Amino acid sequence: TRFDVNPVTDDISRLSSLRQNIPKDYKIPVHYIPKEEAGMCWVQLNVYYLEDSLQDLAHKFGNISSNRRDISIFIQMLQELRLNMGSVELIMYDFECHYRKERWQTVRYFDFVKDFLIAAQNKEDSDD
Amino acid sequence: TRFDVNPVTDDISRLSSLRQNIPKDYKIPVHYIPKEEAGMCWVQLNVYYLEDSLQDLAHKFGNISSNRRDISIFIQMLQELRLNMGSVELIMYDFECHYRKERWQTVRYFDFVKDFLIAAQNKEDSDD
Ligand SMILES: [Ca+2]
Repeated sequence: TRFDVNPVTDDISRLSSLRQNIPKDYKIPVHYIPKEEAGMCWVQLNVYYLEDSLQDLAHKFGNISSNRRDISIFIQMLQELRLNMGSVELIMYDFECHYRKERWQTVRYFDFVKDFLIAAQNKEDSDD
Repeated sequence: TRFDVNPVTDDISRLSSLRQNIPKDYKIPVHYIPKEEAGMCWVQLNVYYLEDSLQDLAHKFGNISSNRRDISIFIQMLQELRLNMGSVELIMYDFECHYRKERWQTVRYFDFVKDFLIAAQNKEDSDD
């Protein structure tokens, strides 16, 4: 899989420079379920809306933008991950009432993305 | 002067890529006097607070950030301009009640910076 080619540590370092290049007091909308409510299904339950929020974030930047380009790499990563996962619709429906809508400052948002990528990597490893 | 070495057109194109790399719905605080109230003194009246707002903006980014680096180039430009101008304190004091505090979205903010740089360039040319 893509994660085996590009180790997750490279992605984490790209994520860190992307984060530093967005104003720290910018508020990014999220739609998510916290770990303690999602348990083992945290990755499956959050992949769809995380990809969605990254898409919205990408569109806040112009066509000639390193931030937009970096975000699109993570979007592609999540898309591949989601396709490998099969349908997440049923489980999302089951957990419907657990979803929260918030706006997070840049650091918190990218900490979430980082946690997500690490959890997805661990999940893939244990699924192998 | 610095402006003669680096034509203002290069600065304008750097400004445009910087603008595209900041979220378009981000709000940037400004403290300014509009052209119609400042007349011939527009550049002198706005140089100080513009430099100040660029300093604040630079600090919204991390240490490893292309945006922060690009902003610091404009800060340096304004500092040199201001030093060449001599003291602006007295005229700022005279126009004190004309200053406005607002928060502008990225495009409007960088349009202001662009207008300012062009006006400063024209002023320098006519002062030569
Ligand atoms: Ca794997």
